[in-house]
Amino acid sequence: MTIGIDMMGGDYAPLEAVKGLALYLADAPVEVKLLLVGDSNQIHQLINEHKVDSKNIEVVHAEQVINMHEHPTKALREKQKSSIAIGFHLLATGKMDAFISAGNTGAMLVGALFSIKALEGVIRPAISTIVPKINGNTGLLLDVGLNADCKPEHLNQFAIMGSVYAQLILGIEKPRTALLNVGEEEGKGNQLAQATYHLLKENKQIHFAGNVEGRDVLQDKADVMVCDGFTGNIILKMAESLFEVGRQRKIEDEFLNRFNFESYGGTPVLGVAKPVIIGHGISGATAFKNMMVLAQKMIEKDVMNKMGEALAV
Amino acid sequence: MTIGIDMMGGDYAPLEAVKGLALYLADAPVEVKLLLVGDSNQIHQLINEHKVDSKNIEVVHAEQVINMHEHPTKALREKQKSSIAIGFHLLATGKMDAFISAGNTGAMLVGALFSIKALEGVIRPAISTIVPKINGNTGLLLDVGLNADCKPEHLNQFAIMGSVYAQLILGIEKPRTALLNVGEEEGKGNQLAQATYHLLKENKQIHFAGNVEGRDVLQDKADVMVCDGFTGNIILKMAESLFEVGRQRKIEDEFLNRFNFESYGGTPVLGVAKPVIIGHGISGATAFKNMMVLAQKMIEKDVMNKMGEALAV
Repeated sequence: MTIGIDMMGGDYAPLEAVKGLALYLADAPVEVKLLLVGDSNQIHQLINEHKVDSKNIEVVHAEQVINMHEHPTKALREKQKSSIAIGFHLLATGKMDAFISAGNTGAMLVGALFSIKALEGVIRPAISTIVPKINGNTGLLLDVGLNADCKPEHLNQFAIMGSVYAQLILGIEKPRTALLNVGEEEGKGNQLAQATYHLLKENKQIHFAGNVEGRDVLQDKADVMVCDGFTGNIILKMAESLFEVGRQRKIEDEFLNRFNFESYGGTPVLGVAKPVIIGHGISGATAFKNMMVLAQKMIEKDVMNKMGEALAV
Repeated sequence: MTIGIDMMGGDYAPLEAVKGLALYLADAPVEVKLLLVGDSNQIHQLINEHKVDSKNIEVVHAEQVINMHEHPTKALREKQKSSIAIGFHLLATGKMDAFISAGNTGAMLVGALFSIKALEGVIRPAISTIVPKINGNTGLLLDVGLNADCKPEHLNQFAIMGSVYAQLILGIEKPRTALLNVGEEEGKGNQLAQATYHLLKENKQIHFAGNVEGRDVLQDKADVMVCDGFTGNIILKMAESLFEVGRQRKIEDEFLNRFNFESYGGTPVLGVAKPVIIGHGISGATAFKNMMVLAQKMIEKDVMNKMGEALAV
C-alpha cells in the first residue's frame, strides 16, 4: 500500500510531519510505501537531519504551497503545483491509496469531493469526529461540518457510514447508532430530526438506539451519533474547548486531556472512494503519526469499499 | 408586587419550595407579597413546621397537580384546578405579577404562550440559559428549546430580547451580541445563519459582535449568543452535563461547579407580557429561592415592558 502525505500542510510543517514520519516508521510494516509531497530540498534535508529511514520513502516535489487562509477552490485551481493539488492528482490516478494533510482544510475538502469520486449512491460525504466518553469508550459524531444544511436522507446515510467506520476502525461490533436530538421520545425535534427518526428506525443497516440529547454526548449512550453539520460542528468545537478549559483551570484530568484532538490525528472524509485524512492546522508529530496509522488501517480494512457495499443495500 | 409560586411543581415539592420560600423571605423587601398555589393543607403544615413568616403570604388552594410526564396541552385543558392552571389564571387576570414553577415544563410553556399574551410584535417567544464563562463572567444563550425550527427574523428578535435581559438582569451595559455559527467570517453557516447575520448586522437595537463558534461558548467572546432552539437545547444540555462530568471524574473546580444549573433557579420565558419562570424538575431550596429573587428583579426592572419597547422600534 502507498500512503501519501502533504509535508507542507500545517502550522509546523514540514518539521513536525517529518518527526511524525519517523515515529510512524518505527512501527510500520515493511510493505507500506510513503509518498512525501512537498518541497524536495526541505524534505530531504529534514529526513537526513532526523535520520529517517528512507527505504520505503519517495519524495514528490511540489513547488507551491496552499496557505491556510487561501480561498480553497481558487487556490486549488491556480496552484496546480501545490502539494495538495499534486497529492490529489496522485490519489485520483491510483499512485497512492490514501492522502493525508494538515493544510488548508477547505482545499482538502474540495479536493476530496471533486478530485476523488464519491462512493456510488452517496448523496453527501461527511466528516466525523471521535468523541471521548466519560467511561473511557470512544464514540463517533457526524457530520461535523461538511454539510451545514442537511436533509433526512443525508443523515440516514451518515448513520450507515458512521456505523461501518465504528465497526472497522473503532472496533465496535454492533455500533449503537443514535440521532442527536432535543428529547428522548420519538416525535421530538425540529423537522429534520423528526423526519430522520423515521428513516433511522426503518434502517436495517444500523443498530438504531433512538434519540440522544446534549447531555448524552459525553456519556456512553450511543457509539455513533448523527446530526446536521451545523449542529455537529458547534458540538465538536465546544467539545474541543474542554481541553482548553482544563488547561486554563489547571485541572489535571485524564478525561479532559482526551479532548486534545490535535494529538489524535485527523478526521477522514467519509463517503468518498479513497481515504482522505484532514489534520488540524496545529498538528504535531504525534498527530501526523496517528494520521498515517489511521490511513494504513483504513486501507487494510478496506473501509471505503465496505462503506460502499453497505450503502448499496 | 405579587409573586406567584406553584408549590406542587418539581420532584421535591412542596418541601423544597417551602424551604426556598423561607430562604427568600429572610432577605425579601416587605412590599413583596407571595401567592402560594397548591395543596392548602400540605402547604400550611410545612409553613408551620419550618416556621415560615406568614405575614406576606397567601395560600391559594389547588386540588390538582399536573405531573411531570403528562401531556402539556391535554393536562392544562383537563386539570383546570391544577396549581399550574390556577397560577396562569391568576397571572392573566392581574392577581400576580410573575409566576414560578418547577413543574411540568411543557405545561408551563403552553401556559406562558397561551394564557399570557406575547409582547406586541413578538413572533416567537424564547427561553434562554445563562452560560458560565471561564473568566468568571456570565453570558446568555437563546433560544434553548422553545423553537426547534427558526427563521432569521426570529433569531433577530431573540438578539433584542437577550440584549435587554442581559442589560437589566445580568447588568451588562452594552451586551456584545453574537450569532452562534460554524466560522467567524461573514458568509459562514447554514442558510439560517447566513440570513440571520445580515439582519443582526443591520440591527441598531443590539451591539453586534459577529459570529462566535462552539469553542467560544465557554469563553468570554460575547455576552448574548443567539441560535435556533434545536442547536441551543443541545448546547445547553451538553453544558449542563459538565457539572456531571466534574462529579463523575471527582474534579473539584469552581468553574465546573457553575454548571450545576439546578441550584441557579429557572429560566424565564422571554417575549411574553409577564414574567414566567420555569425551574428544573429537580429544583432544591436554593433554586426556588433564586427563582423568587429573579421574579422580583424582573418585576422591579420592568423587563417585559422594556423588551416590548425595544422590539417596537
